[in-house]
Amino acid sequence: MYCPQNLNKMAYIQLNEQIPGIRSLLAFRPAIASPFTSLMEVLMRRDEGLSKGERELIASYVSWLNECSLCHQIHGEVAQCFYSEDAGLVQKVKEDYQNASISDKMKALLGIAESTQKGGKYVSEAQVAYAKITGATDVEIHDTVLIAALFCMFNRYVDGLGLVSNDTPETFRERGKMIAEMGYGH
Amino acid sequence: MYCPQNLNKMAYIQLNEQIPGIRSLLAFRPAIASPFTSLMEVLMRRDEGLSKGERELIASYVSWLNECSLCHQIHGEVAQCFYSEDAGLVQKVKEDYQNASISDKMKALLGIAESTQKGGKYVSEAQVAYAKITGATDVEIHDTVLIAALFCMFNRYVDGLGLVSNDTPETFRERGKMIAEMGYGH
Repeated sequence: MYCPQNLNKMAYIQLNEQIPGIRSLLAFRPAIASPFTSLMEVLMRRDEGLSKGERELIASYVSWLNECSLCHQIHGEVAQCFYSEDAGLVQKVKEDYQNASISDKMKALLGIAESTQKGGKYVSEAQVAYAKITGATDVEIHDTVLIAALFCMFNRYVDGLGLVSNDTPETFRERGKMIAEMGYGH
Repeated sequence: MYCPQNLNKMAYIQLNEQIPGIRSLLAFRPAIASPFTSLMEVLMRRDEGLSKGERELIASYVSWLNECSLCHQIHGEVAQCFYSEDAGLVQKVKEDYQNASISDKMKALLGIAESTQKGGKYVSEAQVAYAKITGATDVEIHDTVLIAALFCMFNRYVDGLGLVSNDTPETFRERGKMIAEMGYGH
């Protein structure tokens, strides 16, 4: 797909343009690749408490709120792979999660993620108490806040260095499918 | 030191109250401790490009902007250890870095960190170009954005889970000194 808006654009620092997405940053500073990959595996590739799909939904929604086009699209594609029976779910969550077909617990957790995106102090005791009423455990609340915070980092990392993506809807979908199946270590 | 404001306060999730600071969160979810520690060692304990003191200054300043009391105090103490000849420097940087006795390069990088704290898209090409004129390298710009982004994560993690600190200025100073000397793996 031809992306004229990206022609002649470059990131703010000199990256290897042959390497797509955030991996060009990891190649620029290889020592961070290993802890980042471990963090993603620990937080995003677990089905205990939150499912992998729920984790990716939180990641994609927070990236959408931060208007990080690269992250919300790629993690949206990963999330969607886990909700194959509901084709428009991820987009619906981004635009209006309160009316999406997800559990009340997931709505409460997305509310906590939304507050975390604004800033840690926006998460209220009442909001957490309500999430617990809907059935959320301490580990699920912990993971929700940390995933939201983690993507506030990745979004700033990618956009703060002016990373330019040449991805297309097709390459996002392919990469999303690969991550959903194989995780972040590949 | 007696801290009446913290009496009867608890974090939003059940943590071991015997463990201070962010370490109580790492104890709650031990699998994240190792990648977090590695990330801190790689990004904060290096004198190539930015010095350890400059890295901690950025971390402390961003945490100050996020009003994360725990993080801006502890990393402020770490930073101050590296500027022992200028007792008030860290506080001056937090309040008015443009008039602090730091290099023009460091002022330009703190400007980039300040934009990153607002959101990745706030970092402008002009701002990065100016930092380069003051002598900042691509690696220094990269590390500035990533440290700022990393602390936007830690600040949200700590405050989003309502972490309560029983630290005093004395315990912050002790812990800061220990980190400055020995790093994050202890």
